Amino acid sequence: MENQASGGRFRAVGDGSGLAPGEGFYQEEVQLALRNRGMPLEGMRYPVTPTGMHYLLVHFDVPDIRATDWRLKVSGLVDNPLSLSLEDIKSRAARTLTVTLECAGNGRALLKPRPVSQPWLVEAIGTAQWTGLPLRRVLADAGLKKGAVDVVFTGLDRGVQGGEVQYYQRSLTVAEATAEDVLLVYEMNGEPLQPQHGYPLRLLVPGWYGMASVKWLGRIEVLGEPFQGYQMAHTYRYSQTADDPGEPVTRIRVRSLLVPPGIPDFLTRTRLVEAGLVVLRGRAWSGDGLIQRVEVSTDGGNVWQDAQLDRQNSPYGWCGWSLRWEAAPGQYQILSRATDARGNTQPVDQPWTFQGMGNNMAQAVEVFVE
Amino acid sequence: MENQASGGRFRAVGDGSGLAPGEGFYQEEVQLALRNRGMPLEGMRYPVTPTGMHYLLVHFDVPDIRATDWRLKVSGLVDNPLSLSLEDIKSRAARTLTVTLECAGNGRALLKPRPVSQPWLVEAIGTAQWTGLPLRRVLADAGLKKGAVDVVFTGLDRGVQGGEVQYYQRSLTVAEATAEDVLLVYEMNGEPLQPQHGYPLRLLVPGWYGMASVKWLGRIEVLGEPFQGYQMAHTYRYSQTADDPGEPVTRIRVRSLLVPPGIPDFLTRTRLVEAGLVVLRGRAWSGDGLIQRVEVSTDGGNVWQDAQLDRQNSPYGWCGWSLRWEAAPGQYQILSRATDARGNTQPVDQPWTFQGMGNNMAQAVEVFVE
Repeated sequence: MENQASGGRFRAVGDGSGLAPGEGFYQEEVQLALRNRGMPLEGMRYPVTPTGMHYLLVHFDVPDIRATDWRLKVSGLVDNPLSLSLEDIKSRAARTLTVTLECAGNGRALLKPRPVSQPWLVEAIGTAQWTGLPLRRVLADAGLKKGAVDVVFTGLDRGVQGGEVQYYQRSLTVAEATAEDVLLVYEMNGEPLQPQHGYPLRLLVPGWYGMASVKWLGRIEVLGEPFQGYQMAHTYRYSQTADDPGEPVTRIRVRSLLVPPGIPDFLTRTRLVEAGLVVLRGRAWSGDGLIQRVEVSTDGGNVWQDAQLDRQNSPYGWCGWSLRWEAAPGQYQILSRATDARGNTQPVDQPWTFQGMGNNMAQAVEVFVE
Repeated sequence: MENQASGGRFRAVGDGSGLAPGEGFYQEEVQLALRNRGMPLEGMRYPVTPTGMHYLLVHFDVPDIRATDWRLKVSGLVDNPLSLSLEDIKSRAARTLTVTLECAGNGRALLKPRPVSQPWLVEAIGTAQWTGLPLRRVLADAGLKKGAVDVVFTGLDRGVQGGEVQYYQRSLTVAEATAEDVLLVYEMNGEPLQPQHGYPLRLLVPGWYGMASVKWLGRIEVLGEPFQGYQMAHTYRYSQTADDPGEPVTRIRVRSLLVPPGIPDFLTRTRLVEAGLVVLRGRAWSGDGLIQRVEVSTDGGNVWQDAQLDRQNSPYGWCGWSLRWEAAPGQYQILSRATDARGNTQPVDQPWTFQGMGNNMAQAVEVFVE
């Protein structure tokens, strides 16, 4: 099967046809939504997301891997090509980091016009304790040769996207790949990775959107030139048209979400809250540094109040916040917006991009108080 | 908050407005699809579904329960009202059953016109090993009084549906509730229930659609008359109009699904398969007895061939099947249809119902062979 053999058989995401979504896309988008799960928003109550509630995006199929047959191959511009078993990797000193991951396309389905792809609203989020071996130690063992530029990570999940047959592949520059906190992860929340989270081994790039943290890692290759694979050159770009190369998507933009107050309506998820003192709670995160401020509005964004911040325990994990609210009967739209250490603040209106990437608009929660 | 207080605030599912879905419903349905997860269909390869890949439907919010504060209350027409801790329940002799669960609304979004609710296509399915205490033993301890008719199970998840504030409640008749295999479950696949699967305790009614297996069980009440709660009288009915009471949804209708062959296209999930010998595999199940036959068509339903059945290890768990297929280049639509011990066979065209319940139409998988 050649890479281009299937070009005519499948519609491509982001080929322009997606910009005027009609009925024809409904089923395909719903199909993606049903297999690529969001965190049920009440999961925002947990400082560490229970494994089964963490968001999940799988481009192709979860591959069927037996750890005993599996090896991590390290090749390319290295002095010592490696072939490591899971036991080899687990026998080394591990690190555990608490890291919030978010899908780069989170918020896409709130855009107008709506880019057709995985139709996230706000729920492509989760925080876990990830345990693994720092990638830099493996790269040091392999020995990067002079002229090394990019490190390519190949997942064992294979499929067709944009008409191109491919394994899921992403790259980092040598500087990014050798950062201290980039891990080869084999445990999530103290247990072996579940199949859908990358068993037996995945990459974890703290602070970056989830696309960088390649699951079911099978191969690491060091290149002497920038890697131009499909998931680098054609997707995960901040672009304005199909032809616009745009800028690459990298770190997670500052964002916050509420623990939904009160109880939900089944269909609309609108909230019903009892009148009286309500402690509004939520969490905020950024790939660009610690959270400095969270503001909350209960009137749709006219008046903002400062929330109280919890202690942020991990530079890569979300920060809890709370605000006491005397809720009188009526209808409200509650928003929160966070600001990070670099002074980035969430927008209230979302700038549009062609692929719907990096959306971090303040969440609006509809609430009836009775 | 009175039950009816919020009637005007929220749109009801199945109120008739859902029958001509427009753009307005898109976001609400997608929101449900993202939080109520289907099994990624490649999960059909596992005889027991990994816990994190099992389908999940949560009407309201996953409640936040500490097992130490939690008790199961048994009351109503009983001689000895009970209040049981999790340890009380776990100290008794347990049973483990392998059970396939399916959502009663699976297949709803394939109907035309499309009932507006959780928009399942085919993926609301999963099989697990469930461990717990037979319910009949607890009911025997409580002692059912003469005149006992229905047993009502109250979950601790609370919300609004059809304008009615409610805990999720379902009932069984005394005969159904005292069947040997109805369990009070505290373990799934050998581990404590995850929050989203009903921690600390859920009901399990083998052979029935999932709505009967109430999660986050808090209360069991024995009534002297039929229970008419919202989730019995207004939902989970085989009806033709909003006013038609119809028949109640009970046992799982015979069904089968394929392990998706080959590799997927990201957006459409259409499959790309290499020409040559392909072993098509899948699983079949029914709440009405063992699987007797599975037939497969590779030409959209014109010619059917008998698949080979694996041994079915549990009366309530699915049955594996396979068929060798010499795949020549071309485009195919592959279907499977199962027949159970009562002679029920999956239809190829789905009869329509107002709420989209009990759909068991043969799945059609689009495949390109190259």
